[in-house]
Amino acid sequence: MTEFQRIDLFTRPFEKVGAGVVAGPGDDCALTAPRPGRLLVSKVDELVEGVHFGPAFRPEEIGHKALAVALSDLAAAGSIPRWFLVALALPARIDDRFLARVAKGMAALASRSSVTLVGGNLTRAGALSLTVTTLGEVRPDEALRRSGADAGDELWVTGTLGDAALGLRYLAAGRPKRVTGAVRAQLVPEPRLSIGAVAGRYASAAIDLSDGLLQDLGHLCERSGVGAEVDAGALPLSKEVRRLEGDDALGLALAGGEDYELLLAVPKGRIAGLRRAAGRAGVPLTRIGRIVAGGGIRVLGPGGSELPLPARRGWDPWSGA
Amino acid sequence: MTEFQRIDLFTRPFEKVGAGVVAGPGDDCALTAPRPGRLLVSKVDELVEGVHFGPAFRPEEIGHKALAVALSDLAAAGSIPRWFLVALALPARIDDRFLARVAKGMAALASRSSVTLVGGNLTRAGALSLTVTTLGEVRPDEALRRSGADAGDELWVTGTLGDAALGLRYLAAGRPKRVTGAVRAQLVPEPRLSIGAVAGRYASAAIDLSDGLLQDLGHLCERSGVGAEVDAGALPLSKEVRRLEGDDALGLALAGGEDYELLLAVPKGRIAGLRRAAGRAGVPLTRIGRIVAGGGIRVLGPGGSELPLPARRGWDPWSGA
Repeated sequence: MTEFQRIDLFTRPFEKVGAGVVAGPGDDCALTAPRPGRLLVSKVDELVEGVHFGPAFRPEEIGHKALAVALSDLAAAGSIPRWFLVALALPARIDDRFLARVAKGMAALASRSSVTLVGGNLTRAGALSLTVTTLGEVRPDEALRRSGADAGDELWVTGTLGDAALGLRYLAAGRPKRVTGAVRAQLVPEPRLSIGAVAGRYASAAIDLSDGLLQDLGHLCERSGVGAEVDAGALPLSKEVRRLEGDDALGLALAGGEDYELLLAVPKGRIAGLRRAAGRAGVPLTRIGRIVAGGGIRVLGPGGSELPLPARRGWDPWSGA
Repeated sequence: MTEFQRIDLFTRPFEKVGAGVVAGPGDDCALTAPRPGRLLVSKVDELVEGVHFGPAFRPEEIGHKALAVALSDLAAAGSIPRWFLVALALPARIDDRFLARVAKGMAALASRSSVTLVGGNLTRAGALSLTVTTLGEVRPDEALRRSGADAGDELWVTGTLGDAALGLRYLAAGRPKRVTGAVRAQLVPEPRLSIGAVAGRYASAAIDLSDGLLQDLGHLCERSGVGAEVDAGALPLSKEVRRLEGDDALGLALAGGEDYELLLAVPKGRIAGLRRAAGRAGVPLTRIGRIVAGGGIRVLGPGGSELPLPARRGWDPWSGA
């Protein structure tokens, strides 16, 4: 197969073309028509074999996850994803069937998310990697950033925390017979697009939880020039995570990483509206703490006592390097 | 160094912020303001160590080239580049000084090209790779595509052909003491932004020459549903390439690859305007042939005799895989 036949093979399942696409794969560049008055929202994310996924992942799951993590950031910006580009680095050992399945998994999420593949690049390499650039749009007054949180805002989070990290732990021993919710959270995270698309009407700041709650909340606080209190007992945990012994569940929820849930700072007067929007979108939403003046993050236990922070604050790809 | 310290180190030389940047590196996403009435032009390109560059490259040259090749496509679309994102995959052995020099080389080209780094991603990996997504804008009536060429259009090309491929040949033996024009064409290609930004007013179709003239002209013809004739004697060659023996120079010009020059199909009535624009931009421009009805590419020698096509039509990253 030549480079061009491989490109054809990969792009085949992405047949659905959304609005605003003037030129897609096959031209030098993608040409797309922005909606008037919107800001362009762009993000690039890369998944590398042996770093972000291993042999326990099915090809479809690799394709799904590569797009999902880059869409998650667009959700955290309060935007509506529209288009994306994929740079694929393929080792010679990756056969065409594997490549077709990667594309299939990515195309399924793209179709459900109403985003269109508009361009890409293919090269050979020693290890498989997928670099996805997502492009979205947002009304200027609804764009969410990490800065913008104020003392008094409440902290709300979608879904449950710690599952993906628990799933990663299970997968270290190979793909389990029963793919539990935690394993699924690791393999095929679902970006919170429906709530992301409206979150900018309610939240003052947002971030998606990729590196772990403490680390990502730390970014938000630093950028906003504020501090935060997290109520340990309020953290939303799945049954699977809750079943863990000792402080294990809390550690995963605070610092596990790869949750791809949205963390929102919300002024008190807008909470009712946000909760109604989440209800309409069918997205679970939990209050986990509050923004305070000053700096730093405190995790509070029963009765408001301060708990020690876990030694490992979050996921750092360099920690093992 | 943590992930975040490395990101700081890399982004430091990109201090110049261009127009339209609402949020750049440090937020979940980049937020940029498109100009009203323009199409968004996007492109992703990836350079991988051992595939696209080797030990003869200085770090600054790697940074330059990674951005240059992704800008070249925006020029071929007739657009004005505005912003870009960089996904870096770094082996543990890459030290901070090397990384800072990669950034420096990329930042110098970005500054000269008036494009702003607005986002990125950093991960570790076994081999160094740089994936650059460039974002530009174009008036809808000036957007250039591969389709659009008509029989009777003339074929024009910027600069000279075959240099980068000759430079690659020289570099195979290690970095030469004297960096000639050919070596420079391989190490630090200069994207044709100034002529690209106005080419859409004159040309009917365009492509940037990355895979070699025959292969890229083949894409243009296929997309446009036409054929082409190339006058071998008219191909613009540097002194260095012209000095080669036998058919070597012609082979490099036709199929060497990595020229990053623009190939333009131009209706006869617009040639004078294009030449004036190229003159103002200081870009050499040469007529090399014409678009014809039907399909296929013929290379014509002295007196219009048809020459055999080289066996190797262009650069295919899979040919060695």
